[in-house]
Amino acid sequence: MFTLIHYPLCPFSRSIRLALAECEVDVRFEQEKPWDWNAGFLEINPAGILPVLKVSAGTAICGVYAISEYLADTGLDEAGDARAFAFFPGDETERAEIRRLVDWFHNKFDSEVSSYLIGEKLHRRFDAGTGGAPDMELVRAGQANLRYHLSYIEHLMEARNWLAGEHLSFADFAAAAHLSCIDYLGDVPWSEAEGAKGWYARIKSRPSFRTLLTDRVPGLRPPDEYADPDF
Amino acid sequence: MFTLIHYPLCPFSRSIRLALAECEVDVRFEQEKPWDWNAGFLEINPAGILPVLKVSAGTAICGVYAISEYLADTGLDEAGDARAFAFFPGDETERAEIRRLVDWFHNKFDSEVSSYLIGEKLHRRFDAGTGGAPDMELVRAGQANLRYHLSYIEHLMEARNWLAGEHLSFADFAAAAHLSCIDYLGDVPWSEAEGAKGWYARIKSRPSFRTLLTDRVPGLRPPDEYADPDF
Repeated sequence: MFTLIHYPLCPFSRSIRLALAECEVDVRFEQEKPWDWNAGFLEINPAGILPVLKVSAGTAICGVYAISEYLADTGLDEAGDARAFAFFPGDETERAEIRRLVDWFHNKFDSEVSSYLIGEKLHRRFDAGTGGAPDMELVRAGQANLRYHLSYIEHLMEARNWLAGEHLSFADFAAAAHLSCIDYLGDVPWSEAEGAKGWYARIKSRPSFRTLLTDRVPGLRPPDEYADPDF
Repeated sequence: MFTLIHYPLCPFSRSIRLALAECEVDVRFEQEKPWDWNAGFLEINPAGILPVLKVSAGTAICGVYAISEYLADTGLDEAGDARAFAFFPGDETERAEIRRLVDWFHNKFDSEVSSYLIGEKLHRRFDAGTGGAPDMELVRAGQANLRYHLSYIEHLMEARNWLAGEHLSFADFAAAAHLSCIDYLGDVPWSEAEGAKGWYARIKSRPSFRTLLTDRVPGLRPPDEYADPDF
């Protein structure tokens, strides 16, 4: 059985959790704090980043890029059938569009939004090394950047069924993973972004999303709408 | 014919240039400055990042992740034969190890080394908006981090033929692309890292590397050893 080392409010981990749930893969979970330099974890992944997927004794797939491509690569479920969820559906140009958007959310959105908001409101608060109040200038920068990214999702959804085109893909889960973390922090201005909200409501109502909505970080309560499919 | 939009000292662009040269793909080049917000370029790639591979009229593959996987995906050269260079050779576990290392260099090395050194010594100098002298504190941070990454390459090369294992892969080109930019700036302490130097010497002597060694940025001269295979 696979084991996923993750953290509940790590967007990279969340994107893989969503995809694994869509694939109906049986998986055990272990938690690791992303702000901790744990020697045991660094032995498994010297880059020190989450998530890590242990696929067999001695074999760990490290980081969201390697894991998502590994799961797409292996392609078959335990019974040898094609997985219920295709990470990168379509022809090579459509797959390139999916990967462009995965890159957008896991890199651009992360560095412009998630790293500020999750970094300041979560990591800084719980990391004994830096601990303390969030830097409100960085929080405001993240909130301002978020509006730009929401309008980009709106723009994409004007002509598309899902973010990368006709089909649900890993791009949707990468984007939803980041937004769901920010939503836990109460920072998504959904009422200003109806098109993005419609897309997120569809993702949020999928069975694969349920475990994310029951995640709770001790000492940090999400707003009531966080777990409400009619938010 | 493909067109690659790149910048000579952009490590992401360099990794794709090396791979394209290994694949013996015929390609035209256009330059774009990574610190410029050029409206025409943003229409092609709204993320504003390099490189971009125009594969046909109206179809542009954006970013190093999408391009490398696209080229691996299509897999065939213009005559319909398997490409001379396999981006991710091996079984699914070996491919995951290659991607872990691509991620390491294009993300971790980039944020800990390249973004400091290239950002301060090149972008800051030529960007009229921020223009001026490099922040030496950031330069020193990048130089210190570089030593750690060189020792990681040494560690890998103790048991391996190429970075990810037995075969040359895109991980070698991702790593060599970053190091070659830092080497242009004269910041790689090769004499302190014999194992890494041996690996880099083998990459540097490949025909695919030649065009990188003739790159020159006006007003910024590389050290003499930059283009010397016996450095």
